[in-house]
Amino acid sequence: MSSSQFDHKLSGPSLAFQPLYQQVAEYIKQLIVERRWQPGEMLPSEFKLADEFNVSQGTVRKALTLLTDTKIVTRRQGVGTFVSEHTAQDALFRFFPLQADGKGADLPKAELLSKELVEPIESVQTALSITAKDKVVKLKRRRILDNEFCMLETIYLPSKRFPDIEKREDIPHTLYHFYQTDYNQTVFKTRDSIKAVLASKSDAKSLGIEKGMPLLMVTRVTESIDGKLIEYRESKCRTDHYHYQVELD
Amino acid sequence: MSSSQFDHKLSGPSLAFQPLYQQVAEYIKQLIVERRWQPGEMLPSEFKLADEFNVSQGTVRKALTLLTDTKIVTRRQGVGTFVSEHTAQDALFRFFPLQADGKGADLPKAELLSKELVEPIESVQTALSITAKDKVVKLKRRRILDNEFCMLETIYLPSKRFPDIEKREDIPHTLYHFYQTDYNQTVFKTRDSIKAVLASKSDAKSLGIEKGMPLLMVTRVTESIDGKLIEYRESKCRTDHYHYQVELD
Repeated sequence: MSSSQFDHKLSGPSLAFQPLYQQVAEYIKQLIVERRWQPGEMLPSEFKLADEFNVSQGTVRKALTLLTDTKIVTRRQGVGTFVSEHTAQDALFRFFPLQADGKGADLPKAELLSKELVEPIESVQTALSITAKDKVVKLKRRRILDNEFCMLETIYLPSKRFPDIEKREDIPHTLYHFYQTDYNQTVFKTRDSIKAVLASKSDAKSLGIEKGMPLLMVTRVTESIDGKLIEYRESKCRTDHYHYQVELD
Repeated sequence: MSSSQFDHKLSGPSLAFQPLYQQVAEYIKQLIVERRWQPGEMLPSEFKLADEFNVSQGTVRKALTLLTDTKIVTRRQGVGTFVSEHTAQDALFRFFPLQADGKGADLPKAELLSKELVEPIESVQTALSITAKDKVVKLKRRRILDNEFCMLETIYLPSKRFPDIEKREDIPHTLYHFYQTDYNQTVFKTRDSIKAVLASKSDAKSLGIEKGMPLLMVTRVTESIDGKLIEYRESKCRTDHYHYQVELD
């Protein structure tokens, strides 16, 4: 019975025509999600993995290449393959697209203004695919680049995935790293939607600018490596000295 | 003599430690840039390429995978490997990030407002790394999504790379495809820098909106597959019904 269930799973429509190395990659990713290996930990050798999964070493190598391309694992030449860890710097450079004009990427600081457990408003429910009963933690932060306030953030986290995070007194600047180390939530990708808005009176006060100044309004939905929506955030960004940078290829 | 030049080339500093398949990929790319094969044309088989370059078929396969990842070639299962062609639709979906709210990617239309040969202003010189003596062609366009004006574009092209383009009466909506078919300039990547601005009186008139409305100002530098800067454009985008969409991973 259990064997026929397995057969069924492998022959199901979503796996049709999926090459073996992709199936192996999926499986390794699942083991990482389930914490068989911790972030930063070295995976067994290709030889051992091939032996365990009963596939060729070439197939394991192709699976690891796929997982490297999607940044789930990291290879260190001559050492081995490691479960990727969001170091503070890493995640910032990868997911923080605001840059000071005429300068390269820099590490912004963050000032936490408030944290509270709330019922999600409708836009947050839609963004995170949750209901009004699913509580969220709301964080407000102010980001600092070049000794100037550049951005106001309102961040919503499903309380179920981040239990009691609103009680923590040690929330660091580098949230994505913190999500991974303290809540086993690894950011995999973000989807930003960008609009132009006018600064409200309260935006202006918080950022030390004039009301009516044009700002970028970036709404971001963040997905974890297990495909769950783990964060929604709304950021209002000054662009008088900053710009949002995107490369497409 | 010619053989020692070749040796020297392969052992030069920029190629140090570059795996063979990367060198092969570079070489194939160079042949594509030099038009040995046209966009849309099928490459010789892996077997033939391996024979010609005197490397293994596995090396050719890895080189083609690299060129597929960077979208320089396209594989069609069971048919062969083709030089990528910017079809109208392709290039639009890949490089046009403005979307109507609540809808998916759509194909915008374009209305050409003016075209002229001019001396580049300083910002254009800097963006394209050219001098005041290098003439540029300036195109102005208005983009249409959902039967509404959504964007104003000012596009600068180095005249040297697009000779007499200002005289053409048949400039189509889909410029990147046109650059490739008529000027042998293939877009490889774009770098966008996004700010928020207020609509000027002239912006407002062109877009049918009110002066002072917040707009996105997207400045884009475009690089061709041979690593040259081939276009600079400034786009002012409405975001009352549209947003600029970005995925990071």
